[in-house]
Amino acid sequence: MSSQSQPSEVHLPEAASVAALDTEWANRLQFLVEADHAKQILRQNFLADGSRRENDAEHSWHVTLMALVLAPYAAPEVNLTRVLQMLLIHDIVEIDAGDTFLYDEAAMQTKTERELRAAERIFGLLPAAQAQEFRAWWDEFELGETPEASFAHSLDRMASIVLNHAAGGGGWKVHDIAMEKILERNAPIERGSKVLWEHAANLVRDAQRQGFIRAQNEPPTAP
Amino acid sequence: MSSQSQPSEVHLPEAASVAALDTEWANRLQFLVEADHAKQILRQNFLADGSRRENDAEHSWHVTLMALVLAPYAAPEVNLTRVLQMLLIHDIVEIDAGDTFLYDEAAMQTKTERELRAAERIFGLLPAAQAQEFRAWWDEFELGETPEASFAHSLDRMASIVLNHAAGGGGWKVHDIAMEKILERNAPIERGSKVLWEHAANLVRDAQRQGFIRAQNEPPTAP
Repeated sequence: MSSQSQPSEVHLPEAASVAALDTEWANRLQFLVEADHAKQILRQNFLADGSRRENDAEHSWHVTLMALVLAPYAAPEVNLTRVLQMLLIHDIVEIDAGDTFLYDEAAMQTKTERELRAAERIFGLLPAAQAQEFRAWWDEFELGETPEASFAHSLDRMASIVLNHAAGGGGWKVHDIAMEKILERNAPIERGSKVLWEHAANLVRDAQRQGFIRAQNEPPTAP
Repeated sequence: MSSQSQPSEVHLPEAASVAALDTEWANRLQFLVEADHAKQILRQNFLADGSRRENDAEHSWHVTLMALVLAPYAAPEVNLTRVLQMLLIHDIVEIDAGDTFLYDEAAMQTKTERELRAAERIFGLLPAAQAQEFRAWWDEFELGETPEASFAHSLDRMASIVLNHAAGGGGWKVHDIAMEKILERNAPIERGSKVLWEHAANLVRDAQRQGFIRAQNEPPTAP
C-alpha cells in the first residue's frame, strides 16, 4: 500500500460500536497514564556506565528482566509469574511516596506509611477487582514472606549491587557507604537465594578491592 | 542494630565457597550490564506529560505493565507469562540496531536484518541454554503468529498510542503523521484484540478532534 492510499483493508470500528462510557477502560487508561510518572522518579543508583541516575521505570524493567535471567537461582517452588507481577508494580507507589534510599535510616522509618497511602490512591485508580489484585501483589512484596516475595526482594537488592559495581561505586560512592554496611543491609538476599547472596557479596567485596568503596576502617573516599 | 556495629548476624559466604570461575554467572552478569544500555536508546514518542522522549527501558516496563492491566482484553487462550517474557526482551536488540520509527518506511525495510544481527550478539552473551530460550521468545515476537505474539504486538502499538494521545500528539505531531496513516499502521492491533483496537482507534480519532494531529485532507499542523 502506498503511503497516500486510503487504508481500504483497515477495519475501522464505528464510534457507535464502542460504549460511550466504558468506565473500566477509562480507569485502566487513567492508571497507565498515572504510572507513566515512574519514569520521572530518580533513584540513588546510576546506570551501569555511570552517566546519570536511574529512574523507577528503568529499574522496574531491569529488575524484572533479572527475574528471567536469574530464575535458575530461585528455589524450585517459586512461581516466576508472580515474581514478575510483583516486580513490575513494586515501585509504582514511589510516584507519590518518592524513592527511599536503603541507607537513609530516618526516611526508612516513615517509608511504610507513605507507601501505604500511595498504594491506596494509585492502585485505587483501577477497576475494583483489578485494584484488589494489584494491591495483593504489592502487599505480598512488602510483607516479603512468600518464596516469591523473598526472591523478588533478593533481585531488587541485586539490581542495585550490579549497577553500583558496574558504575565504579555509583550511589555507594556518592554517599560514602562502607563495604560492611552494604553487606549488612543486603544480607537478606540470602533468604531469597543463597547463590545470589554469594555472588552479591563477591561483587561488594570486589568493589572495595578495586577502591570504588572503602572498608569501615579506611578513611572516607574522596568525593 | 546501630549503624556502626559489626554485622554479627550477617552470614558472609567465604570467598573460597564460590567457584572461582562460575562462567554461567559471569555470562548472566555480562548480559544484564549490556542490557542496561536500553536505558539510553531513545524512542520517537514522548512521556505522557510531553516533557521528553521515552527510552527503550522505560517503554519495555510500561508495555509489560500494560500486559497486566489490559490482560482482560486478551483472547482466553493467551498464556500471559509468555507475553510478559516477550515484552521484557523485545527491544533489547535496539541496543545495537537502534529504534526504528513505525512511519519511517526506508528504515523499516532494513530493520529485520539489523535486528537479527543484534539478537545473535546480545542474546548470545547468555549461557547457551538460556540464550536459546530468550532467542525463541524474541523470534516468536518477531514472527507475530501465535496468540501471545499477536497480543504482545497489540500492546506494543497501544503503548505508543496511549502516550502520544496523553502528550497532546507527541511523536505523531513532531513528524506530522496524519490520522489516517496512524490508523492504517496500527490496524494490526485488531489481530491481538478487537476491543483494544476499538479503544486505540478512538484515541487516534480523539487526537484529531482535539487538534493534536491532522486528518489527511487538512494542512500540516504548525511545528
